[in-house]
Amino acid sequence: MTLPGLMQPTPLTLHSIFDRMRAIYPDSSVVSVSGSVAGGDRAVVRHTYAELADRVLRLCTVLRDMGLQPGDRVASFGFNSHRHFELYWAVPLLGGVLHTVNIRLFGEQIAHIVNHAADRFVFVDGDLTDQLAEVSGELTTVEGYIRWGDGDGTGLGATGYEELLDSATPMAIAELPDVPEDAACGICYTSGTTGMPKGVLSSHRGIWLHSMATCMTDAIGIGEHDRILPVVPMFHAFGWGLPYSAPFTGASLVLHGSDTSADALGAVIEDEHVTLAAGVPTIWKDLLPLLQAKEIDYSALRTVFVGGSASPRALIESYEDLGIEYLQVWGMTETGPLACASRPRPRHGRLSRHERLDIQEKTGTILTGVEARIVDEDDQPLPWDGASVGELEVRGPWIASGYYENPEFTKERFHDDWLRTGDMAWMEYDGYFKIVDRAKDLVKSGGEWISSVELEGSLLAHPAVRDAAVVGCHSDKWDERPVAAIVLRPGAAAPTLEEVREFLAPTFAKWWLPDAVEVVDEIPKTSVGKLDKKVLRTQLDHIRLP
Amino acid sequence: MTLPGLMQPTPLTLHSIFDRMRAIYPDSSVVSVSGSVAGGDRAVVRHTYAELADRVLRLCTVLRDMGLQPGDRVASFGFNSHRHFELYWAVPLLGGVLHTVNIRLFGEQIAHIVNHAADRFVFVDGDLTDQLAEVSGELTTVEGYIRWGDGDGTGLGATGYEELLDSATPMAIAELPDVPEDAACGICYTSGTTGMPKGVLSSHRGIWLHSMATCMTDAIGIGEHDRILPVVPMFHAFGWGLPYSAPFTGASLVLHGSDTSADALGAVIEDEHVTLAAGVPTIWKDLLPLLQAKEIDYSALRTVFVGGSASPRALIESYEDLGIEYLQVWGMTETGPLACASRPRPRHGRLSRHERLDIQEKTGTILTGVEARIVDEDDQPLPWDGASVGELEVRGPWIASGYYENPEFTKERFHDDWLRTGDMAWMEYDGYFKIVDRAKDLVKSGGEWISSVELEGSLLAHPAVRDAAVVGCHSDKWDERPVAAIVLRPGAAAPTLEEVREFLAPTFAKWWLPDAVEVVDEIPKTSVGKLDKKVLRTQLDHIRLP
Repeated sequence: MTLPGLMQPTPLTLHSIFDRMRAIYPDSSVVSVSGSVAGGDRAVVRHTYAELADRVLRLCTVLRDMGLQPGDRVASFGFNSHRHFELYWAVPLLGGVLHTVNIRLFGEQIAHIVNHAADRFVFVDGDLTDQLAEVSGELTTVEGYIRWGDGDGTGLGATGYEELLDSATPMAIAELPDVPEDAACGICYTSGTTGMPKGVLSSHRGIWLHSMATCMTDAIGIGEHDRILPVVPMFHAFGWGLPYSAPFTGASLVLHGSDTSADALGAVIEDEHVTLAAGVPTIWKDLLPLLQAKEIDYSALRTVFVGGSASPRALIESYEDLGIEYLQVWGMTETGPLACASRPRPRHGRLSRHERLDIQEKTGTILTGVEARIVDEDDQPLPWDGASVGELEVRGPWIASGYYENPEFTKERFHDDWLRTGDMAWMEYDGYFKIVDRAKDLVKSGGEWISSVELEGSLLAHPAVRDAAVVGCHSDKWDERPVAAIVLRPGAAAPTLEEVREFLAPTFAKWWLPDAVEVVDEIPKTSVGKLDKKVLRTQLDHIRLP
Repeated sequence: MTLPGLMQPTPLTLHSIFDRMRAIYPDSSVVSVSGSVAGGDRAVVRHTYAELADRVLRLCTVLRDMGLQPGDRVASFGFNSHRHFELYWAVPLLGGVLHTVNIRLFGEQIAHIVNHAADRFVFVDGDLTDQLAEVSGELTTVEGYIRWGDGDGTGLGATGYEELLDSATPMAIAELPDVPEDAACGICYTSGTTGMPKGVLSSHRGIWLHSMATCMTDAIGIGEHDRILPVVPMFHAFGWGLPYSAPFTGASLVLHGSDTSADALGAVIEDEHVTLAAGVPTIWKDLLPLLQAKEIDYSALRTVFVGGSASPRALIESYEDLGIEYLQVWGMTETGPLACASRPRPRHGRLSRHERLDIQEKTGTILTGVEARIVDEDDQPLPWDGASVGELEVRGPWIASGYYENPEFTKERFHDDWLRTGDMAWMEYDGYFKIVDRAKDLVKSGGEWISSVELEGSLLAHPAVRDAAVVGCHSDKWDERPVAAIVLRPGAAAPTLEEVREFLAPTFAKWWLPDAVEVVDEIPKTSVGKLDKKVLRTQLDHIRLP
């Protein structure tokens, strides 16, 4: 029998983060942008956390009056905005579960997940009501729609959000229900390339710990002085958790709305003195020319942290050249969401510029609190020898333990407490690792593995190439061989296969070089913007290799 | 009914920190110093975390073979060393409770707390065996003594630690018991100025969360690249938690042994490239001349973080002049132990040097995860208006909820989840606060409060003053008036009362200035080195004020 430690049993819930946001960080703020640069209707509103806390508590009253009960699901269907942020708080504070619906999904998928989650209400951006109206007839559990911002929402019969808030009094803190720390606070569906999206629940405790972890110096190191721009959509993987991490430590948030053009992002980075920005590599690639031309003042921007897919070395280098730290992070919806950051370790010592880039290209070290390992096809742990490649598995207090009401996929992706990530990686002796590819995207040539991701990263550095993807095509001799599909830059001449191979030769072993290069108009992408290699393989089906 | 969040129920225990120390930070190290500069027997040993993990697991085997059961208490009686560090891990890993006995206590107190905790075994430094032997006859529950390092331990019949470790095989990780996260892992007795010391239990969960909190950028910001020197004794307030915080994020530790002379500390700061150092103000005051004279290379030292009592402004300024950040922290054994760090907030804006010092002098902002408030004598919350002074109360997941088997003091110091800290403070609107004095040390003059701490801080800046204390003495007219006791620097002439008042006049309102100044040989201190104002008041009893 252990002895009970007489420490306070304070639950790790969003309530305590909300209390701190109100009490300790009243001056920190959320900047919310609507409209677009191209549309000429760009507008910016600012609220302090004190003001937002008041609006959140009004929203709590609205939701209670709508009959929301603990455990009920409420959907959001919108871009990054202060209103979306308010819902991120109000629903969990009442013990409910916020379902952030990915607006990029196909209509059929949207209907499936809203019905699967049994969402009772949907909060929707005014300019997305038409899109939602197309499927609303199929939503069997939804009792009402609430419209954020302008737009008539005719097709949905949506109620205006601001009108509801205006007429509500803020709920008293004492009226908020007690919520156990292991209760769900959010659900986010993750779309695989097969089957319908699968629901990942986050818990209060998981979000609490994830928020604190991201504030650690060796993770993202978020602090009160930061002004964070999550270009990550709030409907995707909980906006990488930043709508919770920022208030946890008092950092301000800049929510950019729907316009992710380089001009729009450049403007908020300059105007709002953004210090930290998060997004997928494409965002930073598109923004780069603006920064390089010094068309905007980015002097406050100290770090971009980048996940979603591996970043090409040339991109990392370009940001470092500008004096902006380029920090690769890794995670997935199932990992709560951030689980890794790529920082040099002390044993790397003083690094030359070249060596530093070698490190920054790697995936990094699993965050404190979370464990990682690599396993072979029989789930047996592989050695951390810097060479053995196996599937990355993770576990820990902000890692999912299963999918919501989906025993089949739960069984497929979880075993013995471990989540199978679907990523293939090697690990060095101290857990420093690199993901070489998605398990299903590795090319298996003559019994050896070739990383499509690494080839793609290098292909993107070719002056004629605007976009690229590599897949394995059937080879009678080698089982599979890599084939590259490339999209040309405007005006560029198509390189020959030999030219492409010569370009890649200094970086890769000869047997890694692609056996064919196909010029395509565009690389097929999934509804969430990832390379859709299943479709690409079909498109390249005509290629015959020895 | 809330919906269960399907996140993994990973317990927040020291086991997960230990696993990470072994697996992810095998190269980080603990440097352990023994002997003293004056004694000429200074020796340094180094172990990597990988090596220490092996020794910890051997120690687990030793403890198991000694019959240690979960919940059992094991005492340590020693200075900061790698062996002490090993016990910090092995006992909790087995579900036991480490009792770090304060070697500075009086014999009677030591006997009381060892018996109160019912310690089964005591691990003792070789050169402290004689001290412990003086009271060992009164220790009713102790079954055996184990001697760290050299010394014969004749009086105790102590077994040699290294011999035990040498003969043990490392326990397999799978053999370690499952321990619930709310189990106790340590107990530390805190000495008030009245009564016997009271036991504060820490839990696995509390230590885990405290460790992560200290790694947050806005707290201490500890990272893997740090090399931390806790001049804080490991027998005092869990060494401010650093023996757990450092491995949590892979920072190396420098454990300085028993020699806290400026020469000894200067040597380890230089030799071990210390980046972060923690201790009470006296330590940094004594070390200052060495740094100012550039007698040691302190170029790696980026921050000293300083708690235990308020730091004089002149001391903060001197460190900042050297390019070393001087970070005041606040906490107590009951707060797990660190609960506050003094960092400028964004609203302070760009600070002049003078303004920055004004901020650094304050206590700061309560750490994320913990809550603070101030209350009046009826426990009613006071406004955060920067003026109202009340007792500081705190609560949160690493704050004690009571004293071990001491209902009387538990009732006195805890109410409605809040810990009464005994410190008096004012708070600004966003929770930024300053402790003005211990509740019992405030001088109450004509119904208004005067801070003895602030007067002491300024007195220490007087060129003739080496040490100072201020207490309230009875005044018929004002109830109490401040009286200063000062210790002169060698060779300095005693300043007159008028000279002292003139020196203080630019800083304080006239009615704050002391009504008498007494030159004393030394300021009485308690067994743990704090000003003993109870004794001082008795010594100053002869002073008659109008």
